[in-house]
Amino acid sequence: MNEITLIVLGSTVAAVIGIAIGVLGPALAMGKAISSALEALARQPESERSIMRTLFIGLAMIESLAIYCLVIILIVLFKNPLLAYIIH
Amino acid sequence: MNEITLIVLGSTVAAVIGIAIGVLGPALAMGKAISSALEALARQPESERSIMRTLFIGLAMIESLAIYCLVIILIVLFKNPLLAYIIH
Amino acid sequence: MNEITLIVLGSTVAAVIGIAIGVLGPALAMGKAISSALEALARQPESERSIMRTLFIGLAMIESLAIYCLVIILIVLFKNPLLAYIIH
Amino acid sequence: MNEITLIVLGSTVAAVIGIAIGVLGPALAMGKAISSALEALARQPESERSIMRTLFIGLAMIESLAIYCLVIILIVLFKNPLLAYIIH
Amino acid sequence: MNEITLIVLGSTVAAVIGIAIGVLGPALAMGKAISSALEALARQPESERSIMRTLFIGLAMIESLAIYCLVIILIVLFKNPLLAYIIH
Amino acid sequence: MNEITLIVLGSTVAAVIGIAIGVLGPALAMGKAISSALEALARQPESERSIMRTLFIGLAMIESLAIYCLVIILIVLFKNPLLAYIIH
Amino acid sequence: MNEITLIVLGSTVAAVIGIAIGVLGPALAMGKAISSALEALARQPESERSIMRTLFIGLAMIESLAIYCLVIILIVLFKNPLLAYIIH
Amino acid sequence: MNEITLIVLGSTVAAVIGIAIGVLGPALAMGKAISSALEALARQPESERSIMRTLFIGLAMIESLAIYCLVIILIVLFKNPLLAYIIH
Amino acid sequence: MNEITLIVLGSTVAAVIGIAIGVLGPALAMGKAISSALEALARQPESERSIMRTLFIGLAMIESLAIYCLVIILIVLFKNPLLAYIIH
Amino acid sequence: MNEITLIVLGSTVAAVIGIAIGVLGPALAMGKAISSALEALARQPESERSIMRTLFIGLAMIESLAIYCLVIILIVLFKNPLLAYIIH
Amino acid sequence: MNEITLIVLGSTVAAVIGIAIGVLGPALAMGKAISSALEALARQPESERSIMRTLFIGLAMIESLAIYCLVIILIVLFKNPLLAYIIH
Amino acid sequence: MNEITLIVLGSTVAAVIGIAIGVLGPALAMGKAISSALEALARQPESERSIMRTLFIGLAMIESLAIYCLVIILIVLFKNPLLAYIIH
Amino acid sequence: MNEITLIVLGSTVAAVIGIAIGVLGPALAMGKAISSALEALARQPESERSIMRTLFIGLAMIESLAIYCLVIILIVLFKNPLLAYIIH
Amino acid sequence: MNEITLIVLGSTVAAVIGIAIGVLGPALAMGKAISSALEALARQPESERSIMRTLFIGLAMIESLAIYCLVIILIVLFKNPLLAYIIH
Repeated sequence: MNEITLIVLGSTVAAVIGIAIGVLGPALAMGKAISSALEALARQPESERSIMRTLFIGLAMIESLAIYCLVIILIVLFKNPLLAYIIH
Repeated sequence: MNEITLIVLGSTVAAVIGIAIGVLGPALAMGKAISSALEALARQPESERSIMRTLFIGLAMIESLAIYCLVIILIVLFKNPLLAYIIH
Repeated sequence: MNEITLIVLGSTVAAVIGIAIGVLGPALAMGKAISSALEALARQPESERSIMRTLFIGLAMIESLAIYCLVIILIVLFKNPLLAYIIH
Repeated sequence: MNEITLIVLGSTVAAVIGIAIGVLGPALAMGKAISSALEALARQPESERSIMRTLFIGLAMIESLAIYCLVIILIVLFKNPLLAYIIH
Repeated sequence: MNEITLIVLGSTVAAVIGIAIGVLGPALAMGKAISSALEALARQPESERSIMRTLFIGLAMIESLAIYCLVIILIVLFKNPLLAYIIH
Repeated sequence: MNEITLIVLGSTVAAVIGIAIGVLGPALAMGKAISSALEALARQPESERSIMRTLFIGLAMIESLAIYCLVIILIVLFKNPLLAYIIH
Repeated sequence: MNEITLIVLGSTVAAVIGIAIGVLGPALAMGKAISSALEALARQPESERSIMRTLFIGLAMIESLAIYCLVIILIVLFKNPLLAYIIH
Repeated sequence: MNEITLIVLGSTVAAVIGIAIGVLGPALAMGKAISSALEALARQPESERSIMRTLFIGLAMIESLAIYCLVIILIVLFKNPLLAYIIH
Repeated sequence: MNEITLIVLGSTVAAVIGIAIGVLGPALAMGKAISSALEALARQPESERSIMRTLFIGLAMIESLAIYCLVIILIVLFKNPLLAYIIH
Repeated sequence: MNEITLIVLGSTVAAVIGIAIGVLGPALAMGKAISSALEALARQPESERSIMRTLFIGLAMIESLAIYCLVIILIVLFKNPLLAYIIH
Repeated sequence: MNEITLIVLGSTVAAVIGIAIGVLGPALAMGKAISSALEALARQPESERSIMRTLFIGLAMIESLAIYCLVIILIVLFKNPLLAYIIH
Repeated sequence: MNEITLIVLGSTVAAVIGIAIGVLGPALAMGKAISSALEALARQPESERSIMRTLFIGLAMIESLAIYCLVIILIVLFKNPLLAYIIH
Repeated sequence: MNEITLIVLGSTVAAVIGIAIGVLGPALAMGKAISSALEALARQPESERSIMRTLFIGLAMIESLAIYCLVIILIVLFKNPLLAYIIH
Repeated sequence: MNEITLIVLGSTVAAVIGIAIGVLGPALAMGKAISSALEALARQPESERSIMRTLFIGLAMIESLAIYCLVIILIVLFKNPLLAYIIH
């Protein structure tokens, strides 16, 4: 098996497993945040504005973590800088 | 075993295991969010509108994580950019 | 062992294990959602309509995750696009 | 060992382990749903109808997940489409 | 080692381990359901009828999952359809 | 090592490990059910009859799961139908 | 290494590990049952008779699971029926 | 390495690991039972007799499980019946 | 396989798995912090300012941990200082 | 490597790991028992005598489990009966 | 494969996995601390000063642990003192 | 590699890992006991004497378990009786 | 591969993984301590002094554990005493 | 690879991993103890003396466990008595 095949195989498998593990944490965190927002809405319906604002900021922060994960994986799949060392 | 066979095998197995692990987190998160929405409905039936809106936004955010996972897997199955290095 | 045998074996085993793991998360999420719907019904019987509507939307969203998993597995079992590279 | 033997062995073992893991999630989910239904019955005996209806819909949804798992395993055991590639 | 020996060995070990894992989920689910039924009985002794009916339906649904598992294992032990490919 | 030795070894080890794992779930479920029955008795001593009846039905259902496990193991130890393929 | 040695070794190790795992579930279940019985006694000292009866029946049922495990292990250690196939 | 050495090694290691795992369950169960007995004593000091009696019966039942484990291990260490097959 | 290939493969796989594991902790921590902020908002709507300030400082601190992880991975992918030892 | 060396090595490693795992359960159980005794003391200072008696009996029972583990390990280290088969 | 390559590979992989595991604990700890600070703010808005001071000291202490981890990894990546033994 | 080297290596590694695992249980148990003692002190400051006495007896019992572990490891490190079989 | 290379590789990998695991416990402990300090502040703002003093002593004690870990790792990285045996 | 190298490598890796695992338990225990001390302070500020005394004794006891671990590791790193068997 030549070298580039091994790297293609390794990158592909790692990308799929990596995104599967990488969305686990953000998903649970979002679930917890949304769940608390709904409870807060049920307890203080009149402060819906500030609850929604806090929730959106929070979801954006958590989403950013999933995006880090996605970006690294897309870099590996589409434009792995390390490949420059073996493809001349 | 030639090279392309190994990549086909690895991609296929990784895709199936990856989607199976990747829906775990979003599923649990959705379960938690829906469960809180139902509790909120039972406590504040009159604020159903804002509860439903928050729930839908939340479910869409969580779904987006599962979609990231699905997209990476579909890219790997149908149009893996790394294959360009070994199929000329 | 020739190449196609290995791919058939890998795809079959991965499909079975994948669906087994893939229904775990949605099942637990549905259990949680239904459980909360029943508690909500017991606390607010008069708002049965909105509880049922929310529950159905939620179950459909969770089911969609299990369907993603099922679809990938059916693609792998019946029409794996990657097989085009090794069966001419 | 010839090829078909390996596939028979792999499919058989995967089918048994797959169904064993696959019923775990639905079983726990059903247990949770039934448990909540019984608590709801104890708290609101007069709304038995709507509780039972919700419970039945919920159990059917959860059962559907176990059925997905069973169907994939029966396909693998009785009519694996991938076998067409190696049995001519 | 000839082929049929390996399949006999694999099927036997998988059957025993499979049934051991397969009863875990249903057992825990039944324990939870019965436990809730007893709590419901202690809280609402007068609605014993509807509690028992719900419990029986629930236990039957959970038992069905264990039966799926048992059926697959009995098929593998007594009449594995895949054996037709190697015993002529 | 000839074939029958391997099958004897595999069946023996699997039987012992299988029964050890297989009683885990039913044992925990019984513990939960008995524990709830005792709590129910302490809260509603006068409804002892219906509590005991529910408990016995529940324990019998859980015991049935352990029996499934025991039966498969006894079949494997005493009268494994698959042995017919290798002992003529 | 001849065949009977391997079976003796496998059976001995499996027996010891099997009983160690096999008492785990029943022990935890008994602990839970006894703990609930003591709490019930502290809450309803006058219904000691029915609590003790329920506890004894429960402990006997749980003990039966540990006995299943012990019986299989004693069969394997003292009179393994499968040995008839290799010792003539 | 001759055969008896392997069996001595396997039995010794299994005995030590087996007793270490085997006391885990009974220890946790005893801890739970004693803890509940102390709580019961603090809530109902006047029913000390029946609490102590129940506790002693419970501890004896749990101890019996640890004894099963110890007995199997002592049989393996001092008088393994399976050794008769290889030491003539 | 020459040396640089192995390092490219190892770095790529480690980067993907590393970012996937590395966002798990910060995601759960953010979820917990946002959830508490929403509960605090629901209990004390008038102190929204100080709640939001504390939340932002907290999220920034947690984000910094994810950034450490991201930075190490980007260093490894784009400018691994250790490569200087093998590429002259 | 001759035989006795392997047995010395195996016994030594197993003894150390065995005692480390074997004290885990009893330690947690003691912690739970002592913790409940202290809570009971804080709630019913006047029944100190019976609390202390129950605690001592309980700690002795749990200690007995750790002693079983220690005894088996000391037997293995100082006077392993199985060594008689290989040292003449 | 020559020696320095192996060390570069090992250090790179360990650095990435190490930072990913190393931020897990501090992240969860920060999440817990911030969450408690927000709850404390909601309960005692007037003592915001002392709450913020305690929180900052706490976050700094937890951050120090993540910094230990980062420092060791940067030492390994940029200036591993052990390399002096093999690069002359 | 000669025999004594292997035993030195095995004993050293086992001793370090053994003490690390062996202090886990006692540490958690002590933490639980001390924590309960502090809660008891806060609830019943006037019964400090009997609380402290019970705590000291409990800590001594738990410490004894850690000492068992330490003693076995010191025996293995300084005066392993099994070494007599290989060093004449 | 010569000897010193293996030791450099092993020490480097162990150091990075060791610090990553070693900060896990202290981080969680600090999180718990700070969280309780903040709750205590919210409940008893007037006893801030003694709360802060207790917290600082506690954080110092926990930090000492992380320092033990850091010190052993720095010894291994910078001045491993065992290296004296192989570098003359 | 000669013998002393292997022992140096094994001891170094075991020491680092050992201290990392060994501080986990004491750290969690300290966290729990300090947390309870702070809660006790918040509930009974006037009994600060006896709370602090109990906490210090408890922390010292837990620290002793971490010290056991540290001592064994320092013995292994600096003055391993078993080395006398291979270095003459």
